[in-house]
Amino acid sequence: MEPWRDTTQPVETRVADLLSRMTLEEKIAQLAGVWVTAASSGDGVAPHQDELAEDTPPWPEVIKYGLGQLTRTFGTAPVDPQAGAKALEHTQREIMATNRFGIPAMAHEECLAGFTTWGATAYPVPLAWGATFDPALICEMGSRIGHDMRAHGIHQGLAPVLDVTRDPRWGRTEETVGEDPYLVGTICAQYVRGLEQAGIVATLKHFVGYSASRAGRNHGPVSMGPRELADVMLPPFEMALREGARSVMQSYTEIDGVPTAADHRLLTELLRDVLGFTGVVVSDYFGVSFLETLHGTAADAGEAARQALTAGVDVELPTVRCYGSPLAEAVRSGSFDESFVDRAAARVLSQKCELGLLDPSYSPSASPVPLDSADNRAVARRIAEESVVLLENSSGVLPLEARRVAVVGGLADDPLAMLGCYSFPAHVGVSHPDAGLGVEIKTVLAALRERFAEVTYVPDGPGVQAAVEAADVCVAVVGDKSGLFGRGTSGEGCDAPDLRLPGDQTDLLESVLGTSTPVVVVLCSGRPYAVPPAAATVQTFFPGEEGANAIADVLTGKVNPSGRLPVSVPAHPGAQPATYLAAPLGHHSEVSALDPTPRFPFGHGLSYTSFEYQDLRLSSTEIPADGSVDVTCTVTNSGARAGTEVVQLYLRDPVAQVTRPWRQLAGFVRVPLEPGQSTDVTFTVHADLTSFTGRDGYRLVEPGSVEVYIGRSCADTPLTASFTITGSARPVGRDRVLQSSARHS
Amino acid sequence: MEPWRDTTQPVETRVADLLSRMTLEEKIAQLAGVWVTAASSGDGVAPHQDELAEDTPPWPEVIKYGLGQLTRTFGTAPVDPQAGAKALEHTQREIMATNRFGIPAMAHEECLAGFTTWGATAYPVPLAWGATFDPALICEMGSRIGHDMRAHGIHQGLAPVLDVTRDPRWGRTEETVGEDPYLVGTICAQYVRGLEQAGIVATLKHFVGYSASRAGRNHGPVSMGPRELADVMLPPFEMALREGARSVMQSYTEIDGVPTAADHRLLTELLRDVLGFTGVVVSDYFGVSFLETLHGTAADAGEAARQALTAGVDVELPTVRCYGSPLAEAVRSGSFDESFVDRAAARVLSQKCELGLLDPSYSPSASPVPLDSADNRAVARRIAEESVVLLENSSGVLPLEARRVAVVGGLADDPLAMLGCYSFPAHVGVSHPDAGLGVEIKTVLAALRERFAEVTYVPDGPGVQAAVEAADVCVAVVGDKSGLFGRGTSGEGCDAPDLRLPGDQTDLLESVLGTSTPVVVVLCSGRPYAVPPAAATVQTFFPGEEGANAIADVLTGKVNPSGRLPVSVPAHPGAQPATYLAAPLGHHSEVSALDPTPRFPFGHGLSYTSFEYQDLRLSSTEIPADGSVDVTCTVTNSGARAGTEVVQLYLRDPVAQVTRPWRQLAGFVRVPLEPGQSTDVTFTVHADLTSFTGRDGYRLVEPGSVEVYIGRSCADTPLTASFTITGSARPVGRDRVLQSSARHS
Repeated sequence: MEPWRDTTQPVETRVADLLSRMTLEEKIAQLAGVWVTAASSGDGVAPHQDELAEDTPPWPEVIKYGLGQLTRTFGTAPVDPQAGAKALEHTQREIMATNRFGIPAMAHEECLAGFTTWGATAYPVPLAWGATFDPALICEMGSRIGHDMRAHGIHQGLAPVLDVTRDPRWGRTEETVGEDPYLVGTICAQYVRGLEQAGIVATLKHFVGYSASRAGRNHGPVSMGPRELADVMLPPFEMALREGARSVMQSYTEIDGVPTAADHRLLTELLRDVLGFTGVVVSDYFGVSFLETLHGTAADAGEAARQALTAGVDVELPTVRCYGSPLAEAVRSGSFDESFVDRAAARVLSQKCELGLLDPSYSPSASPVPLDSADNRAVARRIAEESVVLLENSSGVLPLEARRVAVVGGLADDPLAMLGCYSFPAHVGVSHPDAGLGVEIKTVLAALRERFAEVTYVPDGPGVQAAVEAADVCVAVVGDKSGLFGRGTSGEGCDAPDLRLPGDQTDLLESVLGTSTPVVVVLCSGRPYAVPPAAATVQTFFPGEEGANAIADVLTGKVNPSGRLPVSVPAHPGAQPATYLAAPLGHHSEVSALDPTPRFPFGHGLSYTSFEYQDLRLSSTEIPADGSVDVTCTVTNSGARAGTEVVQLYLRDPVAQVTRPWRQLAGFVRVPLEPGQSTDVTFTVHADLTSFTGRDGYRLVEPGSVEVYIGRSCADTPLTASFTITGSARPVGRDRVLQSSARHS
Repeated sequence: MEPWRDTTQPVETRVADLLSRMTLEEKIAQLAGVWVTAASSGDGVAPHQDELAEDTPPWPEVIKYGLGQLTRTFGTAPVDPQAGAKALEHTQREIMATNRFGIPAMAHEECLAGFTTWGATAYPVPLAWGATFDPALICEMGSRIGHDMRAHGIHQGLAPVLDVTRDPRWGRTEETVGEDPYLVGTICAQYVRGLEQAGIVATLKHFVGYSASRAGRNHGPVSMGPRELADVMLPPFEMALREGARSVMQSYTEIDGVPTAADHRLLTELLRDVLGFTGVVVSDYFGVSFLETLHGTAADAGEAARQALTAGVDVELPTVRCYGSPLAEAVRSGSFDESFVDRAAARVLSQKCELGLLDPSYSPSASPVPLDSADNRAVARRIAEESVVLLENSSGVLPLEARRVAVVGGLADDPLAMLGCYSFPAHVGVSHPDAGLGVEIKTVLAALRERFAEVTYVPDGPGVQAAVEAADVCVAVVGDKSGLFGRGTSGEGCDAPDLRLPGDQTDLLESVLGTSTPVVVVLCSGRPYAVPPAAATVQTFFPGEEGANAIADVLTGKVNPSGRLPVSVPAHPGAQPATYLAAPLGHHSEVSALDPTPRFPFGHGLSYTSFEYQDLRLSSTEIPADGSVDVTCTVTNSGARAGTEVVQLYLRDPVAQVTRPWRQLAGFVRVPLEPGQSTDVTFTVHADLTSFTGRDGYRLVEPGSVEVYIGRSCADTPLTASFTITGSARPVGRDRVLQSSARHS
């Protein structure tokens, strides 16, 4: 038996042997994926011609020497998932039969808020995950998504998104977990854990900087220095890598003039040499070509291939435009060394080997399971419930005790208002409207009708005010409809010029706020918006297929809201970008007419009960630069209902060699409490959590005073204390402690 | 005679000798300036208590050991300039009499758009200078400003501003020359030449990065990498340094977490070691203190002093808060070496020596001249005329041949609408309203009344539409009123959330645009605004005391407009920041709902005649990396009126190792042409103008193709060609060619 087929041999040996047997073309064939669509007859796939046009050769030629990846066999048209799995199996057999070694392709699919196929569970979007502050729950979701994908023959999922929101005007803000890297990292790391535990390769994206595009315009150049990159954008990737993510996707963007796809420092020196990543780097779709067509660093496809491959992009997706014959010609012409092809092919084949794809026993047979199971829906429901953020309720109108409810706003009656751009119906379904939603998605209106005796619905236009005046309460549903590239007001390419509600929704709100009836504003959106004050305001972020039930249960009081803002809600629609994570200069208002204070700060969220904070104590007021401190406080449910408080810990370094954030999240925990119940909450905070990138570009823990804030949001922190880090500065590296631990009795 | 008093000795010898005789306190006293106000009695000054409060010791103590600088003796209250000069002279004698060596202080004053004192000529603001594309004219203005200051006993002027507009929402956009570094640099270099030729020390500010604050919020942190800093923000400073500017002011900001005031790389390694600056670095007002109070890199005033002084801030302005006793104590405590004090003191004393302030014959007597002379006014008028930008006139309504003119907009009748924040009346006068304007400033309304038979004025409110309907044409004057910190809608601290006209001016425009009368919109503003289309639109940027005459003469046709936009006028009030100087990714619109195309591009401006471009020829299509190419074209006035075209040359490097701007201004020239007249325009473009900061952080000329565009704006370039730079990459340094030369027959 050839060593590479011998499953008793170590991966390294098998891959080296296999590589030694491969021609240049065979190796290169492993370095690209091709976008295909499951044929509706269920017995094969076809190249996805809409997107690839002239770039894709005929299918037999594509697979002649093998194929690295199959792109989105489930995701581009509404195909019955069982038939899709069959088609994928058929195609894999064809690929295996065609190449000399019988190697199948890795099949990847989008899975941001669920397996992105027709009929799969549509979970809430990442911004809603952020609002839950509940990493364990997101782990469970990741595991369920992975299980469903695995059963359908998928190997790799293109999620999660670890971009930190830097400008909420960006259309993909809904795909992020929010504006704080600690929150993004802790949540996404658990998504990765869940997905990888189910056997799916998680893909960390987008590496790195994408969310900081100028003016929030998709693909816009990024102005950023290395310190901000290291201290704000990278930590989520570091956290997720520790959970074993096996793939990383390069970002479309360029930072300070260098496209990430051609950045050896980023993709090799940082990602591999410093952070220790050993998996496969894939390009974002068409990202290698963009070196020629958008960035202007490459004169042709061969040069783009050389730049990307040598920088560290192992696989081009979803085309062979650069990593096809142009790459082969570039190698043959001697423009660069074949060892770069070998390096990438070894990574791809190692991953295939680890997944069993090189084993003689490998079978591409799938065993499809029913998608959108009751258990899935229960998890989707729980995330939705935990993600509803009660922004204001000073009038006490919530929970609603009204009989006659007037519902306004076109989104109230639109199931797509519950979904993010990367759920199947919003991502692809809108171009196939006859296919339906694939899963049951209740509207807010329907959910309210199930719960209230008399519900009047007037979407907008004349008659709204009269209908509202006649009711006990008005529920105004406003926000976004998500979609791709101009098909929505949120989602990929749907960037906003400012944070005013899209369309005439502000006018609608003002007209109902002008009545004598109390108004409950329900935001279903993909980003925060500046909205006028109301009797009560509830913020949700595309809460998924169970979102309407969750919203309605919060309104009735069946669910006591416990979501917290993963992004600031601004006071003004302009003056962006502005997130809470800024040095004091970014919070200083004396020298500018623009007060940066948000209307609702990061971490904010009300409950139907109240919580008191008391008795902050530190295990020590002095710790060494490699030590930790236990920070304990007592939290009491001082109201009359059971509820869950999200206890948040922020740090501040008041004097440092570089400017440090005003405050920065360094711990949080959800604490359910019965009325009158108290509990002690303890955070163990390692000195590493105060570390930052110093003047010399290296990360260190700096001695000195550190301030600790504990409370309900970044701006409402009833408890404060400080401790001192003693000794001398301590360099820290990739093994540093990235998270605090929290426990409560 | 002590060597330092011997005027036959070289400066170096004199300063070394003087330093050797000074105590630590005496040296430190030379490193600070104090903000004083000329007493109204005319015989002395007093510390400016409003601003300095508890920080300034009693006057005798301040000057006990000497004093480095006197801050704004003319600028903080309306004082008769002759009396002010007397008070300054008196104060200088007091200072000279008090310190052992008889050394006077350097007296500095603001002079951005004129000597900032009561009664001095109020020139147009820098954004208007940019609109002239006429460096020679700005040189003449600089020389006149310098002459007036020198005659009043001033040694140093705190101008020009070399910040490149990166976000026009920033309130200080009016103080910049625009969004292109080449335009900013060529114009400001000539301002420096004029000021320095008049014997005034020019102060280049703000070094560096200030204009790129996040969201345009004044003092906001700057996210920027070293390449953007080097290629966009620094070139204007390099150009101005070549004209002999002897002072540089540190900027308030922090870049990627490092405050400029504590940045040795910037203030010493770059500014002095690389760029060769040998003058004095002064702090922006309170900028040293801000290390403690805003940036949080210093725990106390002594530490702030240590950080700033060792980084390279030689003089603290306008207080002794850090560079007073805290600095002395820090040196005595051994926290850093006294040699840093000596280094800064030597720079200050060298400058004083060069200015004759150490000479035994030095007399602080001033010889005040009348301010706002007729010659000054003539220059102010010419700049104003050349800076009026005709944005649109598709209806041909301009020049006006109307009899009955309806003027609307409150700014039409407000002389302050002509002035920038740093002109005396707007900067200080508003807090002293009884003092009046100091100079005659006509309003647009008054200028129109002088020129038209029947002028009806309705500022706003009811009656506007009726008045407009009854007229032949409506002139709507809208824009900004400039002032400091919330006193205006433009100016320092008056940052805008978006580029919507302030207040209800958009409503006013929409109401008059709804009539059947053609509307001419006249913008008098400190930044570009998104305004609706009109019969004609004229953009001016605070055109100064002669601005109303210039505007009215353009409207009547007496002046044929020749101004060109130094900033893009956006199509939408949101989606900022966006300037034309971006890599192709910043101009790409397929992947975002936000089309970045401006309504009127950088360089745009119409005339009452038309110009044709023909016959582009290059002296060579191949040049070596240290060569140059002559680019010639023929420009013809194809209309019926004499007029001036601003011929603009842009370059683009289509493929480079880093992403390069879509297009970048590299030459321009004003060409006056009679009807039917043609001329050949030739630009000599050195290969250095294609240079950029490479991957390794060093500047180079890269071989390859370079595209040349010639035309009327960055987006309207009828002529294109390309040449090739041959050979291998050539490193270039501070001696590189920074400007093209242009000539026409």
